[in-house]
Amino acid sequence: MIPGGESVQLGRDGRLRHLLTTEGLPAEIVLRILDTAEQFVPVSEREVKKVPLLRGKSIFNVFFENSTRTRTTFEIAAKRLSADVINLNIGASSTAKGETLLDTVYNLQAMDADMFVVRHAQSGAAHLIARHVKPGVAVINAGDGRHAHPTQGLLDMFTIRHYKKDFSALSVAIVGDVLHSRVARSQIFALKTLGVPDLRVVGPATLIPADAERLGVRVFHDMQEGIRGCDVVIMLRLQNERMNGALLPSAGEFFKCYGLTAEKLARAKPDAIVMHPGPMNRGVEIDSPVADGRQSVILPQVTFGIAVRMAVMSMLGSPS
Amino acid sequence: MIPGGESVQLGRDGRLRHLLTTEGLPAEIVLRILDTAEQFVPVSEREVKKVPLLRGKSIFNVFFENSTRTRTTFEIAAKRLSADVINLNIGASSTAKGETLLDTVYNLQAMDADMFVVRHAQSGAAHLIARHVKPGVAVINAGDGRHAHPTQGLLDMFTIRHYKKDFSALSVAIVGDVLHSRVARSQIFALKTLGVPDLRVVGPATLIPADAERLGVRVFHDMQEGIRGCDVVIMLRLQNERMNGALLPSAGEFFKCYGLTAEKLARAKPDAIVMHPGPMNRGVEIDSPVADGRQSVILPQVTFGIAVRMAVMSMLGSPS
Amino acid sequence: MIPGGESVQLGRDGRLRHLLTTEGLPAEIVLRILDTAEQFVPVSEREVKKVPLLRGKSIFNVFFENSTRTRTTFEIAAKRLSADVINLNIGASSTAKGETLLDTVYNLQAMDADMFVVRHAQSGAAHLIARHVKPGVAVINAGDGRHAHPTQGLLDMFTIRHYKKDFSALSVAIVGDVLHSRVARSQIFALKTLGVPDLRVVGPATLIPADAERLGVRVFHDMQEGIRGCDVVIMLRLQNERMNGALLPSAGEFFKCYGLTAEKLARAKPDAIVMHPGPMNRGVEIDSPVADGRQSVILPQVTFGIAVRMAVMSMLGSPS
Repeated sequence: MIPGGESVQLGRDGRLRHLLTTEGLPAEIVLRILDTAEQFVPVSEREVKKVPLLRGKSIFNVFFENSTRTRTTFEIAAKRLSADVINLNIGASSTAKGETLLDTVYNLQAMDADMFVVRHAQSGAAHLIARHVKPGVAVINAGDGRHAHPTQGLLDMFTIRHYKKDFSALSVAIVGDVLHSRVARSQIFALKTLGVPDLRVVGPATLIPADAERLGVRVFHDMQEGIRGCDVVIMLRLQNERMNGALLPSAGEFFKCYGLTAEKLARAKPDAIVMHPGPMNRGVEIDSPVADGRQSVILPQVTFGIAVRMAVMSMLGSPS
Repeated sequence: MIPGGESVQLGRDGRLRHLLTTEGLPAEIVLRILDTAEQFVPVSEREVKKVPLLRGKSIFNVFFENSTRTRTTFEIAAKRLSADVINLNIGASSTAKGETLLDTVYNLQAMDADMFVVRHAQSGAAHLIARHVKPGVAVINAGDGRHAHPTQGLLDMFTIRHYKKDFSALSVAIVGDVLHSRVARSQIFALKTLGVPDLRVVGPATLIPADAERLGVRVFHDMQEGIRGCDVVIMLRLQNERMNGALLPSAGEFFKCYGLTAEKLARAKPDAIVMHPGPMNRGVEIDSPVADGRQSVILPQVTFGIAVRMAVMSMLGSPS
Repeated sequence: MIPGGESVQLGRDGRLRHLLTTEGLPAEIVLRILDTAEQFVPVSEREVKKVPLLRGKSIFNVFFENSTRTRTTFEIAAKRLSADVINLNIGASSTAKGETLLDTVYNLQAMDADMFVVRHAQSGAAHLIARHVKPGVAVINAGDGRHAHPTQGLLDMFTIRHYKKDFSALSVAIVGDVLHSRVARSQIFALKTLGVPDLRVVGPATLIPADAERLGVRVFHDMQEGIRGCDVVIMLRLQNERMNGALLPSAGEFFKCYGLTAEKLARAKPDAIVMHPGPMNRGVEIDSPVADGRQSVILPQVTFGIAVRMAVMSMLGSPS
């Protein structure tokens, strides 16, 4: 979708230079991120939740689109690595002053930034920035339009590996608004890379990309079929703006067909885990007893997300 | 008002687990907070205004209602304790996305938060959160609806003790909009607990709670009577939205009857102190010569507020 | 313009107490700031971009007018000096609550602030604050109305000295909306103090102050004349609100007459440098090939700006 994204994020030596997308990200790098994250999980459980790896580095959370939750996860990750964090909500600021995206970035770079965490409503914004920063400055895509949200995809891989150990025999279903979801795209590429043999997307035809099968997934419009026998059921967030739009009859209707209830979940394996990137619309994508139930790993996803972001930041920001 | 608030904030061993309200807070705990705060006053006077007590802790200022001033006092207190502070203005964020209050909190908790400082427009919000967090996670109520603002109440106790030494022979008057004031409620409970024998509330009938006397206070509608012979005169802030409402004729009329002028203050003891939680409406609750006069301890309240918040945070956040 | 500004910012011993304006700032202090800044440039190039000079100090960025970019430069500078930084956007906060400017400042001061960085839409706001803070508390003017923006003026001096070494034989032209520009005012005073012999302002009569010549500058309305033979061409930002106002026909017309193109720049010396305080309106004040060209030092200005702000903060905040 974004040409050249894959090549920009890897250096010529094959090391990670930026994290822009899980598309084309080699399995060994994905696994190295997950392994590094394993080492960071205990840091957040200590009395002193800090390691000095990025001390004195300047990390800019540059959010052209507001997202308190995502910004917070990166801010915590950076602070636990001892970096200096600067939060910028650009929506109402420089772009309002007519400055271009690249001028904004060049300016921040001139302040000797080490890393940019970028959220933008337009697909490709983080790639554009990555192609223009100096050597030694890293860019992390914290969500760009409908394109990618790679740290979310990676924390989901971490979560699946944590509970299922091995990707090579898994059935995974991604349910809901796949069409508009950068999270789904980032999950699909990573799951394929890690060798998941049975990957399914489930949703109404209006919310499944026309070319879904080219991504190597099986498409289901019937949820009971779609999650039958799965090891992992990933529910997507339904954006509010879709709920009363042309693509959907209503939130209630959606819940009836695609909301995850205990009854529907019974079709998956008994030890299937339930995931959701948050924030949840209870009663729309997911029924509360399931969201809070014994199969839900939704809150562990958040916890692992900090460790995964620490891993990515430390890999991008450390000299060696 | 909020059932069970008192018991939630104390552990079974009687130690402070959360700070939600001064109602039912035992005198020994109030005094221990004040004594601990005494030790923190000098920290803010040093060249290096920092102690490492909460180093590596993650403290979340979760403000569902905007209050730059209050947020700032907690942020400074946390930073002087060397904690990592994350500010979240949730008003425009997750709740807008339809997430429930508890989902928001569970999410932040999953990021391994150690402490939440919560401000919310609804009475009982901090209690609700405190009842649902994990052991080891502490909640401080930074103001919930009309219910409580306990750190404000405690810093007021610190200020009174600083100037008057002993609570056991004091006359204290609280003047103004008692009905809508969480500050007044927090003061009244603390003053009763500390044994103030003569506690009065002063204001128009429309701004005094109907059940005021059940709280153990004497009600005055005439200000000159109400503050006569007092050691401490506490002025409350009049919310803008009351000034032209049904409860009050006008700000000017209010000032004439209940605004603290030098002339009215002359009815109190000559060494009476004047307090106000800020921000002041000069010329509405209080006349400028009094606000800036020799009896005013309004700015010392702010200074002591940092020490009191450091005390509460260190008591809640330190292991032993 | 602001009476007494110059005297407020210097102590009786001649040392810098506040930084409010470059007007009347003695050459030896300007040069000492520039020399100090030289020592901070390498700090931002290190792996660990931090020095412990202001550790444990509380610096408040008090922005009554939003400016993400300027706030960011001060925040980074303070963090690289190891200070604790508190950001306050007051626009929507206390002043909305009817509190006066000085009450806001007294409150923050009572929290044991060490330094205020103040941005305000009204000329003289920083001076007012400086006249009222306690000894030991420093104020930096980060832009007040049309009056002054001294750190911008000083970073421009640093930039000019960096590229031109010596001020004593320079021709400098300041081009554009001089009338409304606090940046231009701060530059003019500093350039005169440093002995620039040939200082010119260039713009349409509607955007040049009537008393410009009293400031010791030559006025040009023809740009080709105005920048002829110059060593330094400083372009000013044209505020959006001027572009379609009564003072200007249109942005396109302005660009034709006063926008810096390669063709116009050819009138200046071949090694002339081009400066702009940012954010740029490309195609209004400046043509992109010039903004990004070999003579442009616009991004080095930003880099040096961090070092200059670190220098000012360290001089104001260190005991010595």
